[in-house]
Amino acid sequence: MAGVVEFKQHPSEALKAGAGFDLAGVDPDSTPGYTGKKADGQALLDAQDTRLAELQEKLFAHGKFGGTKRVLLILQATDTAGKGGIVSHVVGAMDPQGVQLTAFKAPTDEEKAHDFLWRIEKELPRAGMVGVFDRSHYEDVLIHRVHAWADAEELERRYAAINDFEARLAEQGTSVVKVMLHISRDEQKARLLDRLDDPGKHWKYSTGDLAERAQWEAYQEAYAVAFEKTSTASAPWHVVPANKKWYARIAVQQLLLEALEGLDLQWPKVEFDVAAERALVLKS
Amino acid sequence: MAGVVEFKQHPSEALKAGAGFDLAGVDPDSTPGYTGKKADGQALLDAQDTRLAELQEKLFAHGKFGGTKRVLLILQATDTAGKGGIVSHVVGAMDPQGVQLTAFKAPTDEEKAHDFLWRIEKELPRAGMVGVFDRSHYEDVLIHRVHAWADAEELERRYAAINDFEARLAEQGTSVVKVMLHISRDEQKARLLDRLDDPGKHWKYSTGDLAERAQWEAYQEAYAVAFEKTSTASAPWHVVPANKKWYARIAVQQLLLEALEGLDLQWPKVEFDVAAERALVLKS
Repeated sequence: MAGVVEFKQHPSEALKAGAGFDLAGVDPDSTPGYTGKKADGQALLDAQDTRLAELQEKLFAHGKFGGTKRVLLILQATDTAGKGGIVSHVVGAMDPQGVQLTAFKAPTDEEKAHDFLWRIEKELPRAGMVGVFDRSHYEDVLIHRVHAWADAEELERRYAAINDFEARLAEQGTSVVKVMLHISRDEQKARLLDRLDDPGKHWKYSTGDLAERAQWEAYQEAYAVAFEKTSTASAPWHVVPANKKWYARIAVQQLLLEALEGLDLQWPKVEFDVAAERALVLKS
Repeated sequence: MAGVVEFKQHPSEALKAGAGFDLAGVDPDSTPGYTGKKADGQALLDAQDTRLAELQEKLFAHGKFGGTKRVLLILQATDTAGKGGIVSHVVGAMDPQGVQLTAFKAPTDEEKAHDFLWRIEKELPRAGMVGVFDRSHYEDVLIHRVHAWADAEELERRYAAINDFEARLAEQGTSVVKVMLHISRDEQKARLLDRLDDPGKHWKYSTGDLAERAQWEAYQEAYAVAFEKTSTASAPWHVVPANKKWYARIAVQQLLLEALEGLDLQWPKVEFDVAAERALVLKS
């Protein structure tokens, strides 16, 4: 696109948590693969909105005609890291009719009476849809590990179950995009203070946030282990530096674009005779 | 707003299907209450997006803190009338996190095994959410009437059941906004031809559309009766002339804005001590 600064290296490569990945080595202030500044990033985000919406419409049409492809974006992050902004500014550019968003909270009693993937399975996107998980089954190997709500053996069972589950999704035509938004501890402090300093943001602040913040290192370790265990070829993790919100948004947008482009979507072939229908409409 | 052409009469008044309402007297090309042109309307739509998103965020925050208010937008219309455009261009301006969209299709076997409001009840918006129904329980008094799938007595039962149902919603804090998008028969013909002339829109065309189109007058009558029976004080119908898409969008946007403003939302009062939390965050 003329006049727009694009990525030099695609986020699907630049941000992938592959073999030997080191979370501690990722600078939350960095902008991997992108040399532009904030204004460039915002221009890129706007410029790609239309392309994202077009591809999503093709996916939706595909689903309407019996196709089984779909996309599932999984967002994980600590409080204040910007999941909400991704939903609002990246996902929000797509037609609401083609998006299925689920925000997973603490499980209900009914959900707790089932295995951890039970509630996840129920919220999987329908054919032709872009599903978005704001938190996910990964909570069961993150917060559960940090608070020792699951022991080592159970955690191992869950990592393996997640890999089987996601492999099935991929085999059945779901492009799974796993994103961890990575902010620094100092950035979280600044954002928590920002919520306290703006009465319009008080409702976003929870007194429980500080208890989780106190476990910062344990969460980093839990994420590192989760990447090691569950960043697979069919469903790799991407760690998105997110101190710069504008960067996180264009990075996730690119990951979604790549997932949709990888589905190789075509407009459905209709079975009716266009000319004959045209004549019928004219007469109607 | 400086430089923006606003409504001279609010759509909640100008478009209400009140006592003595005559559907046949509504010109689908008209722009009741609005003297601006297309460019003015588009500017107004953009100018009000932010206000709509702000109010929706307040509603969401309200729901997070135990409030029970919510909004339910019910969209009814014939094929091609522009429901999808309302969802994409008006609803799409709100944060996906605060919107619950349901597109009702032909009922499943399980749904048919229940009374017609069973599947509707399940999709009602949660507290703090803006629910949007793309088609609704009104199908059960529209298409069912046109095709005589329900007899006169059963239709009467349904009108009454709908009024009871919606009155309960209103009493419980739901602002119900009922919209019928009204296009002319010629406009539908033009839009059907448009779908046939653009390969990227073929998937939106269904050979069944013409069978429903053949019942045009019966549908107009079914709508007229539905308005007479179910346009209540707590949940009135609004008939939106929709030959001009830009007008339909600003009209529905205004109806949503009014519904949200009528909820008299405030940012929730938090229970924690802001200064004390601030000190804790600084130390963390």
